[in-house]
Amino acid sequence: MSKKKYIYLFEEGNSDMRLLLGGKGANLAEMTRIGLPVPPGFTITTEACIEYLNFDRTFPEGMLENVFEALAILEKKTGRKFGDRENPLLVSVRSGAAISMPGMMDTILNLGLNDETVLGLADQTGDRRFAYDCYRRFMQMFGNVVLGIEHQKFDEAVERCKRRLKLIFDYEIPADELERLIKEYKGLVEHETGFDFPQDVKKQLAMAIQAVFDSWNNQRAKVYRRINKIDDKLGTAVNVQAMAFGNMGPDSGTGVAFTRNPSTGEKELYGEFLVNAQGEDVVAGIRTPMPIDKLKEELPEVYNQFIFTCEKLESHYRDMQDIEFTVEKGKLYMLQTRNGKRTAKASVKVAVDMVNEGLISIEEALLRVDAEQINQLLHRQIDGSVELKAIATGLPASPGAACGKAVFDADLAEKLGESGEKVVLVRSETTPDDIHGIVHAQGVLTSRGGMTSHAAVVARGMGKPCVCGCEAIKIDAGKRQFTVAGVVVKEGDIITIDGASGNVILGEVPMVEPTLSAEFETLLKWADEVKTLAVRANADTPQDAAKAVEFGAEGIGLCRTEHMFMAADRLPAVQEMIMAEKLADREKALGKLLPLQREDFYGILKAMSPNPVTIRLLDPPLHEFLPDHEALLLEIAEMKHNKADEKLLVEKEELLKTIHKLSEANPMLGHRGCRLGLSYPEIYRMQARAIFEAMVRLKEEGIKTFAEIEIPLVMDAAELALLKAEIFDVYEEIKKEKLVELEFAIGTMIELPRACLLADEIAAEAEFFSFGTNDLTQTTLGFSRDDAEGKFIPVYLNKKILKDNPFAVLDRKGVGSLMQMAVEKARSVKEDILLGICGEHGGEPSSIEFCHILGLNYVSCSPYRIPVARLAAAQAALKNKR
Amino acid sequence: MSKKKYIYLFEEGNSDMRLLLGGKGANLAEMTRIGLPVPPGFTITTEACIEYLNFDRTFPEGMLENVFEALAILEKKTGRKFGDRENPLLVSVRSGAAISMPGMMDTILNLGLNDETVLGLADQTGDRRFAYDCYRRFMQMFGNVVLGIEHQKFDEAVERCKRRLKLIFDYEIPADELERLIKEYKGLVEHETGFDFPQDVKKQLAMAIQAVFDSWNNQRAKVYRRINKIDDKLGTAVNVQAMAFGNMGPDSGTGVAFTRNPSTGEKELYGEFLVNAQGEDVVAGIRTPMPIDKLKEELPEVYNQFIFTCEKLESHYRDMQDIEFTVEKGKLYMLQTRNGKRTAKASVKVAVDMVNEGLISIEEALLRVDAEQINQLLHRQIDGSVELKAIATGLPASPGAACGKAVFDADLAEKLGESGEKVVLVRSETTPDDIHGIVHAQGVLTSRGGMTSHAAVVARGMGKPCVCGCEAIKIDAGKRQFTVAGVVVKEGDIITIDGASGNVILGEVPMVEPTLSAEFETLLKWADEVKTLAVRANADTPQDAAKAVEFGAEGIGLCRTEHMFMAADRLPAVQEMIMAEKLADREKALGKLLPLQREDFYGILKAMSPNPVTIRLLDPPLHEFLPDHEALLLEIAEMKHNKADEKLLVEKEELLKTIHKLSEANPMLGHRGCRLGLSYPEIYRMQARAIFEAMVRLKEEGIKTFAEIEIPLVMDAAELALLKAEIFDVYEEIKKEKLVELEFAIGTMIELPRACLLADEIAAEAEFFSFGTNDLTQTTLGFSRDDAEGKFIPVYLNKKILKDNPFAVLDRKGVGSLMQMAVEKARSVKEDILLGICGEHGGEPSSIEFCHILGLNYVSCSPYRIPVARLAAAQAALKNKR
Repeated sequence: MSKKKYIYLFEEGNSDMRLLLGGKGANLAEMTRIGLPVPPGFTITTEACIEYLNFDRTFPEGMLENVFEALAILEKKTGRKFGDRENPLLVSVRSGAAISMPGMMDTILNLGLNDETVLGLADQTGDRRFAYDCYRRFMQMFGNVVLGIEHQKFDEAVERCKRRLKLIFDYEIPADELERLIKEYKGLVEHETGFDFPQDVKKQLAMAIQAVFDSWNNQRAKVYRRINKIDDKLGTAVNVQAMAFGNMGPDSGTGVAFTRNPSTGEKELYGEFLVNAQGEDVVAGIRTPMPIDKLKEELPEVYNQFIFTCEKLESHYRDMQDIEFTVEKGKLYMLQTRNGKRTAKASVKVAVDMVNEGLISIEEALLRVDAEQINQLLHRQIDGSVELKAIATGLPASPGAACGKAVFDADLAEKLGESGEKVVLVRSETTPDDIHGIVHAQGVLTSRGGMTSHAAVVARGMGKPCVCGCEAIKIDAGKRQFTVAGVVVKEGDIITIDGASGNVILGEVPMVEPTLSAEFETLLKWADEVKTLAVRANADTPQDAAKAVEFGAEGIGLCRTEHMFMAADRLPAVQEMIMAEKLADREKALGKLLPLQREDFYGILKAMSPNPVTIRLLDPPLHEFLPDHEALLLEIAEMKHNKADEKLLVEKEELLKTIHKLSEANPMLGHRGCRLGLSYPEIYRMQARAIFEAMVRLKEEGIKTFAEIEIPLVMDAAELALLKAEIFDVYEEIKKEKLVELEFAIGTMIELPRACLLADEIAAEAEFFSFGTNDLTQTTLGFSRDDAEGKFIPVYLNKKILKDNPFAVLDRKGVGSLMQMAVEKARSVKEDILLGICGEHGGEPSSIEFCHILGLNYVSCSPYRIPVARLAAAQAALKNKR
Repeated sequence: MSKKKYIYLFEEGNSDMRLLLGGKGANLAEMTRIGLPVPPGFTITTEACIEYLNFDRTFPEGMLENVFEALAILEKKTGRKFGDRENPLLVSVRSGAAISMPGMMDTILNLGLNDETVLGLADQTGDRRFAYDCYRRFMQMFGNVVLGIEHQKFDEAVERCKRRLKLIFDYEIPADELERLIKEYKGLVEHETGFDFPQDVKKQLAMAIQAVFDSWNNQRAKVYRRINKIDDKLGTAVNVQAMAFGNMGPDSGTGVAFTRNPSTGEKELYGEFLVNAQGEDVVAGIRTPMPIDKLKEELPEVYNQFIFTCEKLESHYRDMQDIEFTVEKGKLYMLQTRNGKRTAKASVKVAVDMVNEGLISIEEALLRVDAEQINQLLHRQIDGSVELKAIATGLPASPGAACGKAVFDADLAEKLGESGEKVVLVRSETTPDDIHGIVHAQGVLTSRGGMTSHAAVVARGMGKPCVCGCEAIKIDAGKRQFTVAGVVVKEGDIITIDGASGNVILGEVPMVEPTLSAEFETLLKWADEVKTLAVRANADTPQDAAKAVEFGAEGIGLCRTEHMFMAADRLPAVQEMIMAEKLADREKALGKLLPLQREDFYGILKAMSPNPVTIRLLDPPLHEFLPDHEALLLEIAEMKHNKADEKLLVEKEELLKTIHKLSEANPMLGHRGCRLGLSYPEIYRMQARAIFEAMVRLKEEGIKTFAEIEIPLVMDAAELALLKAEIFDVYEEIKKEKLVELEFAIGTMIELPRACLLADEIAAEAEFFSFGTNDLTQTTLGFSRDDAEGKFIPVYLNKKILKDNPFAVLDRKGVGSLMQMAVEKARSVKEDILLGICGEHGGEPSSIEFCHILGLNYVSCSPYRIPVARLAAAQAALKNKR
């Protein structure tokens, strides 16, 4: 049996050993290795922790002996002795997992103090009060985190003491009283645990190590790991390090610093220093630390050494560092360094600056910026520096923040909006009738409906913030108010909604506008040079198309035509078409829609010229264009009661009958997509004609266009073949009428499992595929998004059945394997078939990486996510280089 | 260029050449080959037809020359000459496709007659009138089918003639008048076609051949092929055969016969004979033919020869034959033989009898009976011999016929039913509140809802006939009547519904009871010896389980527990559970359900002992157990209007709120199946406890049981693992309480694409899989069954996008390929995992064959389909033997 190495002296490790030594330990080792002044110490490995946890909380055999062997080396290096009355060695004990994790036990300082060694500390510092204060604090920290005694109980003893002495601050307590307090603490420990506070320093150390190990599995740590998806099996390392004393006089002190500004990314030292203090005092906030610059005046030599060290660390780690340090009698000690957390803005600037400084390569810069995080920079947002209280939280349906007067109907929203007032439209749910109100509102708040509800889809399409399904608010449209947890919000009251978090906040909240900095533009230009995936936009209007071009879209990957049908000026004709019982009547209604659709396509194709525009023919079930069933039902009941006009009643009842007839048990799997086109070819023919006529006009104007006509919800090649024939038939008519030839392609959405399974047959009929992963996720997992996100996906995430919401992050195992099958089958019959994705996953970095691995040609996402997608596509290309 | 052989003399072909020579031609050749008396002739191949149709309706090169060469051989054999004045050869020309197909041109008799040869015929028969009548009829047949002149126009000429002569019957027209008529026909032909009736007999023949070829593509034939799924590319052959004259005197005649009774299967000659007649006269129905037995007296020698020929044909073809023959002057000629069509009853009897007679093997017998057809024998049904007029037609939701008084509410249905009256429950749709009414009704008729509506599912489960979604009937529950096409059906009026056709018939209709004949039992016993698939039943009650055992079930493959929740005595407790906001309240309500569920499982396990029972834990979304949303909405509106009791109103509003909260956009993909179990483990725990407690009691009674506890709607191994843990936890409790060990297994439904894709991981957690192909079809194709069957599947079948309704016949390409993947993955990690199917496909022969090919262990279907499944499983085994 080979004995494992559980202990690494700092000089034995390096920064690559993060998994074994934890982040903190690996960096302490690395700093030691490159010659920076680090107090000597050693790390107990994460493996030791895992073995401890797996074997009934028993230390691995030999581990503790090795700890004391390492401690002996520390004694030799420092010239001090652990537990020695004259010259005691004190150590800090800190946890340190591979991934930084709040919630675990963090630090115990000054371990090694007891009734004897405290005297030695007093002698050494010449400050008896300080020594006893250290001892008291150590006992308190140890008592709390190692022995599990409530913090409050120690605090109460201190409070009693201060009351008795009529003191206000802890630091006013004199040495003798501290000694008394220590006695009281000992009584407390004995009372709470049944044994004495350990005087044996070795026992102290062993217990502290055990406490760190145990803290891996405390509730807070577990929750944190669950939320942040950290593997439970990593374990934590333990760092034992000789104390450096920042509290040994005016030439001592402690500080924290970032090598660059973590908020803006500016290249400037950023941090604080507290003279004559230990780390704990900085946290306690009793004395105000000074900006790090001041150190230049106070301790110029230390400052210079620190500047030099920072530069060395940055050039060594090749990234912005977050540093903790202590100065003991003019001597600098580095206690910790790690890559500094930063805002999206800083992240971009630091990465680009470092390339310009020659510190890192363009590729490293691209990989260093969190693609998801930069989404923050693309929406007007709530100023993160302000603390806010949400009155309710709904689903974060469309990012960005909006602030304005709460308004409860679309007409008023339009009226106020047009007159320049800022309003937030509040509805239980929205319908096509509300579109004009949404257009003129800053954002939308609904109490019902999920992430694909009408409000959510329309708002995302318009790039407007939206919080939906906020069930806590009770809307009384009659009284024009809503209530939530006792608060009444009346029409005209100012509210703010945060579409990124789902929060609803009373009143106005400070906002920050999105800025595309020069560095951001540079980074994205680099991304474009590296990525192989094209990035397109999902856009339904010329405005969206223009925004998409501005953000760098290389085409439109999904132009939905149903939102055009929902516009207020079209809806009557659409409803007329639906109510028509005869083909002739339906064609008459479609005739009214034709010129309007032609205008739509004209605008979008022009805005995107000469890039391709994928136009999806009508997809949703027809009943989506009819009024709300329940409201109509009640209206009819009311009319009957009031003996209303007979003719009007008959009309309404006719409408209700149609709604009943068209209503479906599961509309998601119902009469929609190409099934509509097959039942009513005249609808798709009208749309094809509108596209071709728009293209003809643009061609006459000398504007180059390329339309990709997309058939939705295909599950068999025959569907596509039949509808292609209809479209080509319309094209033949156009060719005869206009005597022109047009450039276009016909393809299909791949959004049903069967379409993936039969992708070879379908590819034979298609010039392109676009994976509709929203619907493919719904059918593959059997999750109705509207129902799942509110009801059981939270349960699934909580029970760890799913790692991520599959509508946010593409489910590689299920949906992904179907996509892979489809790609392989399609390419096996048509090598150069154009393959893209237009589900919402097209804007999510991990999903984009998967699309890159699959070998798709493009991803398509909302205009506001295009920069995210460009960066993510570049990262995917870099990560998957062979 | 090798010249193709387009013509086969009868002596050149055989019965294996059906594809090339058509069914009729192949059988004529076969009969010739085995030495039966067949008038000489030849067949023009189907290939010639296809070439003709593909090349602009031009005969293949050399074909016509070959026809005349073959004709020369016929002349030599008969000693007659085609077109000869003295001794004319007349021929019949008949179409004959590989698969018998009404709708094509059938027969032209006496071709070869013209103004000259008719004289020869008159001389030969010594009957001038007869010769001219033949000529007239030939002209009429030829004029109609070859020249395309409306039949009516010829008839009018005949009518005019009879009016003028004051005659009633055609056969009263004298020879001279027939000659006049022939002149009139000639004028008609000239007027209609612009040319003279062809006197050139070779031209007659060429034109007739062309007409047969063309008839392959006439409208009726195309429709027939579409409905019967016959390949358009098969083409038809043409048979040219020397005429035998059954009308040459009292020793001549024509007849048709079956070698056994096609209705009962009895071994007795069954047919008719008409003395001194041609085939056409039998069809015309002017003279009544005599039963074939009479031939014994009339023409004993011919009769004996015929008996001998029939026996020879049966022993040669080894199946019951359907024969056409002619006797010319005491000489028997066989004109056609084919396997005879027969009823399900006859099919079974003939097959079993022929085994007993040593004519065919058991395997052949098993393959010869249409498994789907025998379903007819398993339900009480409308007597097929009676002609009926349906007043409306709905969806054929549950087979069998029911007759009784129309009753419009469940309470009355129960009351009358209990008092022994037969009633049919008529509702717009049924809800759980109607169960007691359905129990006491003969059948159910609804005006709304699809094949999986509550009414349909419950009725199928109970084996009761059901017609649903019969939208033509307008129910006025208030007036207790329905109207359809002007007919008013009042409560108490007798109606009959046919769940096999969807027909609704006014009044009582003769029924036949299902009979399991001795032969049927024998056949099924043979099937059991051959099949490798086990056959289980889908059964939810002890009654169903008993019925299933009676029909030969080897276990229960699906016991749904939700119908138990819907029973009237449970529903209040179920609703209480749903309305509960706290776990404790929910558990209290579940406590009330526990003893009831225990009773359910006790009964079913006992009825099926010692065979396994797969019990599926609760599957449907909870809102299915709540009252109808729309009705409640209107009720509340009404209550408000009438200022109803405040407390009651609040209660109703509370209920409405819950319904709203639980209502789902797509319940099929919603909060159901194991998702319920994960959200409310206490529900599944109660069910597990009920199962275990029932098993304990049975064990105490010495009754052996095996429960397979099934988790529905799994899409990830983790779901199964978590719920397994809950069930084992309950089992541990039971073991402690009762001190017994029980035998059971835990497995899962595979009904989502992702479950198939991850079947290896899931199999690691499961002891069995049961493919829920209803839901798997819904998700794989993206077809909501309730919406698709009424709305777009008909369009898909009509446009030939789908060959079959995928909910009836398993979609092998899509759903099947997922199943195959799942089987391979599952067996790769757990070789002996038990695999079955419990979707409705489990009772459909083609789907059963696919399950056999996949290597499943069992199929499970409704009790009434078990015999079908047993036979289909045997056939699958035989067809797929290597």
